[in-house]
Formats: sequence, structure tokens, C-alpha cells
Amino acid sequence: MQLPEPTLRRLPWYLAYLGLLNQKGVEYISSTKISEELNVDSSQIAKDLSFLNIRGKTRIGYEVKALESKLRDFLGFACVHRAVMAGVGSLGEALIRDSGLQRYGLRISAGVDINPDLIGSTICGVTIHHPDKLPQLVKELDITIGIVAVPFESAQAMADTLADAGIRALWNFTPYRIRAREGVVITNTSIYSHLALIYNRLASQR
Amino acid sequence: MQLPEPTLRRLPWYLAYLGLLNQKGVEYISSTKISEELNVDSSQIAKDLSFLNIRGKTRIGYEVKALESKLRDFLGFACVHRAVMAGVGSLGEALIRDSGLQRYGLRISAGVDINPDLIGSTICGVTIHHPDKLPQLVKELDITIGIVAVPFESAQAMADTLADAGIRALWNFTPYRIRAREGVVITNTSIYSHLALIYNRLASQR
Repeated sequence: MQLPEPTLRRLPWYLAYLGLLNQKGVEYISSTKISEELNVDSSQIAKDLSFLNIRGKTRIGYEVKALESKLRDFLGFACVHRAVMAGVGSLGEALIRDSGLQRYGLRISAGVDINPDLIGSTICGVTIHHPDKLPQLVKELDITIGIVAVPFESAQAMADTLADAGIRALWNFTPYRIRAREGVVITNTSIYSHLALIYNRLASQR
Repeated sequence: MQLPEPTLRRLPWYLAYLGLLNQKGVEYISSTKISEELNVDSSQIAKDLSFLNIRGKTRIGYEVKALESKLRDFLGFACVHRAVMAGVGSLGEALIRDSGLQRYGLRISAGVDINPDLIGSTICGVTIHHPDKLPQLVKELDITIGIVAVPFESAQAMADTLADAGIRALWNFTPYRIRAREGVVITNTSIYSHLALIYNRLASQR
């Protein structure tokens, strides 16, 4: 089932909060308390969690451990999703080195780059290949996700190459607005837009 | 002036596209062409760019080089904004190593971490200190932005420590929903929410 984006944004907040409660040994939590802590309307929380077919018990609330585990499964964080890093410059290398992504189910299985100095090298066990190898890599390593971290001027061309190679989802880290073809999932992580937001808000405070 | 968030999200798209045109030697561009390329309504583009007091010329359009330069200035990417990395685990270290952020005006001037093995070490020229040093670092290095990359269970405490030290903006990379105090800017980069979105969309395609 295709969940609404705002729900998918909030569910990881609940998961992080439940993880915190679990560490503290808290066994049950009410939606009222979650609502206070995360500043989300409690009826909204109930609605978001109803997608998981989970309902709190009257006067007791939700069982922390069970909800945390169910939420992790539901969000796909407990499964392995294989990805290729397209562009192993500064950001691409940084993301390969970030082992935190693995805890959220993302395994970067290979990298591609046109830089001949990088081809054949490995970063944290991830081998870098020429983009020509993409169709073969996607098939042999069962890769579904392409992380786009090339310079923005090559973003669209790389997105097309990835789609041609059989990639089913693109995670775009460039500031370029990639157009995906029919049937290919696209998600943008707009680091630079967030910086622009911070700078604007800081400047407008002065 | 406090710009609307959607405008701040779109302006970096225009900047990336203008950069591409500039590289190709294109001198003028119409809002119609930008609209087609980026799939944004052309009246919306004109409205977004009017915040910069820039208007295209009839039948010629915008001057690419001038608009690119003005947009970069306007977004704050041409200035230096100093930041401290709070939490130098896997993601924190990766972000310090990502030199791309510097091209968007972000200079990470110091790091803090409670891990005694890290304190006193340097990563790409950035020295890691104990969080106790924050008030001094913020003052001496003229730091305005705190990047929160600690484990989520320490996110709120670290945010409070950063605010106490005089930090004016928090850039939250944890999945925890930090509450900022009055007057402190907060921006969330929800890497894990984006992963959840990708996983959900992939699963719902099957």
C-alpha cells in the first residue's frame, strides 16, 4: 500500500522515540505522551499507526517493544535493500563510509564513477566500477536503488543510465531536479535547499 | 526577509540549471524553457525570482551568468557560514569529509564528541573537542550553526547544549524530532524518512 508522504515522514520520528523509551525500560506509552513529546496531534498519531493495524489499549496505550519492532519492519528498515553509489566524489564516498545507513536497511553493494583513478579501487569494501558495468552489476548484485551523487551537470544523464540498467528507485542527492521515467521511484534529499533555508532564516533574524 | 520554504526549495534547482547552461555557453534563458526543463510553472518561476528583484526581459529572458551569480549570493552560498559538527560518528565524519558543502558556503570549523578516543584528533583539518568546550569554540571561531549527528537518544540534550553555547541554528540529521527553543532556527534533513519513502514506493509497485 502506498502511504502518504507526511505519514512516512512521521513514522520514523515515532520509531526513534520508541527506541529511546525502550532503552529507558519504558513498557507502555500513550498517544497523548507521544503527542506531547513530538508535537504531533494525538489523533494524527493514531491515524498514522492505524496503517500498521496497531491500536493502543484503552488507559494503557501502546506496548513500546512490540510497536518499535513492528514499525521497523513496516518501514522496511529490517530488510536489506541493495544500492549502487553513482558518483564516488566527496559526498558519494562519505555516504559509502556512513555505516549508519546499514542500520536502516540500506546496503551499498557497488559504486560507479568515470574517474579512471577510482575504477578498481575499494572504499570500506565497496568496489568502484565504470558506469558501463551497471547493467551487469544491477543484475548480479540484485541492486534496486541508485544513489545519485554525481556533479549536478551529469545528474540527468546518470539517472537515465541507471534506469536503463534496471534500477527501480533513484535517490537524488544533487541539487539538479532529475526527471524519472514512468515506473521509476524518485526521492530527493535536498541538502543544499536545507542550507539555503538555514542561511535565510539566520539572515532574517538580524 | 523570510522567504517561503517552497521558494527556498526551488531556488537551488534554478541555480543548478543555470550552472549547467553557463557551462554550455548559453547566454539567455526564458522562464518558459526553465519551466519545461524543471517542470515548474513559469508564473511560479517569475514569482520566485521576483524575490531577488530580478525580472526577465521580454522575448530575451534572463541573462544566465548574471542570474546565476545573483542567485548564489542571494541564497547565501557565496558567504562563509561557520558550523560545528556535534557528534563525530560515522555520519558526522562523512559530512566533515564532504568538501562539497564548502562550495555552498558551509565551513565546518570544529567537531565535538564525548568519545575520549576522538577528542584531540583531527579529520580533514577539523579538530574534535569535548562538548564542554562548546561555549568557547562558538565564541572564538564565530560559529552560528550546529550540525546534530549524535545518536538519536542524545539529540535533544545535544541540541540544548548547542543552544546554551550560543548556537543560532540547528541542522538536525538524526531521526529524532528535536524541539528548539525560541529564536533558534531548526532544519531537519530526514535521510531515514527518505529511505522509508523509497522502500514503501518500491514495495507498493510489486
